[in-house]
Amino acid sequence: MNILLMVAYDGTNYCGWQRQSGQMTVQQRLEEALSQLYKKPITVRGSSRTDTGVHCKGQGALYTVEQNIPADRLPYAVNAFLPDDIVVNGAYIVDDGFHPQYSVIDKTYEYKILNAPFRDPVLNHYTEFIHYPLNMEKMRRACIHFIGEHDFKAFCASGSDAKTTVRTIYSLDVQKSGDIISIKVRGNGFLYNMVRIIAGTLVYVGLGKIQPDEIPQIIQSRDRARAGKTLVPNGLTLLEVNYEKIGR
Amino acid sequence: MNILLMVAYDGTNYCGWQRQSGQMTVQQRLEEALSQLYKKPITVRGSSRTDTGVHCKGQGALYTVEQNIPADRLPYAVNAFLPDDIVVNGAYIVDDGFHPQYSVIDKTYEYKILNAPFRDPVLNHYTEFIHYPLNMEKMRRACIHFIGEHDFKAFCASGSDAKTTVRTIYSLDVQKSGDIISIKVRGNGFLYNMVRIIAGTLVYVGLGKIQPDEIPQIIQSRDRARAGKTLVPNGLTLLEVNYEKIGR
Repeated sequence: MNILLMVAYDGTNYCGWQRQSGQMTVQQRLEEALSQLYKKPITVRGSSRTDTGVHCKGQGALYTVEQNIPADRLPYAVNAFLPDDIVVNGAYIVDDGFHPQYSVIDKTYEYKILNAPFRDPVLNHYTEFIHYPLNMEKMRRACIHFIGEHDFKAFCASGSDAKTTVRTIYSLDVQKSGDIISIKVRGNGFLYNMVRIIAGTLVYVGLGKIQPDEIPQIIQSRDRARAGKTLVPNGLTLLEVNYEKIGR
Repeated sequence: MNILLMVAYDGTNYCGWQRQSGQMTVQQRLEEALSQLYKKPITVRGSSRTDTGVHCKGQGALYTVEQNIPADRLPYAVNAFLPDDIVVNGAYIVDDGFHPQYSVIDKTYEYKILNAPFRDPVLNHYTEFIHYPLNMEKMRRACIHFIGEHDFKAFCASGSDAKTTVRTIYSLDVQKSGDIISIKVRGNGFLYNMVRIIAGTLVYVGLGKIQPDEIPQIIQSRDRARAGKTLVPNGLTLLEVNYEKIGR
């Protein structure tokens, strides 16, 4: 049977999701846990290759196995073999047509910024720190220009091997609670570093370096140099991956 | 002149505040930074001896020095010599009568609990995790019995050398936001492990093991065995120390 696990992790101590030789990754640590549980080698296919330092509240990891552990017990069984910074918080039996990437309807990311005079030591691994006050009103006005289907080449790091740089953003919103600014974005897919570059561009808007109504020109330019800087990975969390067919 | 620094830290990687030989503590790391800044040995006196793993948003550290760095520049100067998990976020010149403990009016602590079916990997260092649902209404009803001047011997870890176990709690409140339960308590002083034992007792109330109206008897008993368990240090943050005379 095909099992889709929902996996949350603190990315601080991992070289991202994707297995790579010589580096400890979340995928590798999860595969080790599953292999211990089932007493045979298990490989998983993930929905998102999160980078080093990026966190996750729940992305899917698909694998095939014969053994029948009930889905509602499976998270506890896998967690027994995982370290504290990786947690399986859901499990679903999916049919043969399910694909870890193509069955994705949308993904939601959150980028968090500490906008305060001083750093907060407990937030170092979970926020970008910006000392200068950001103009929330301008940032919110900039958001609406990102929504819809666009060619986001200007918001893609070089070295990406994506076939097309067209993506659809369904929602983009900026909220402030205390000193924490939260940028939430939902879309059908994201280019390499796209969320961190959008967040960095919104920061430039908040600082007055870019005006909100310049965003359409920056998108049209397809020129990475016209967008803002790429913010640090620590501030980024993959909040949710929404799949066809599993009723999430 | 006498300087009071306000210091925030992530307690995860330190053996608490207080200097002790053979262990890295926040006090020692701060004294090293100040000694580098002033190019002479500096020792500080803190207001609270937080334990290993306990966090802090701002406690005072007092020292005496001749050199005159303007108070508004001092935090930046000290932070240049500190690691990311310790931040000085305020500095005040105080008069000779100021005492780091006796000039304290009150202290506020927060204890955070993740009350959810599964752990959240990014909250491991900052919350106690409780799987069983806690009854917020009962916990709130228990809170009112702690408020006022009481002998809190039942809420003090053994081995404490406090002269008296009488303390005054000015406020104690429980709030829930999403899966996070926040217990905030303000008082004129706290016994060893007192906040973690009060939080543990409120958890027992939330689980139904102790009824809210049993709290007065437990206080009167002065018997540690009748209160709840001591929760993990990670969930605890010293939020604020309120001093006489410095206008905070």
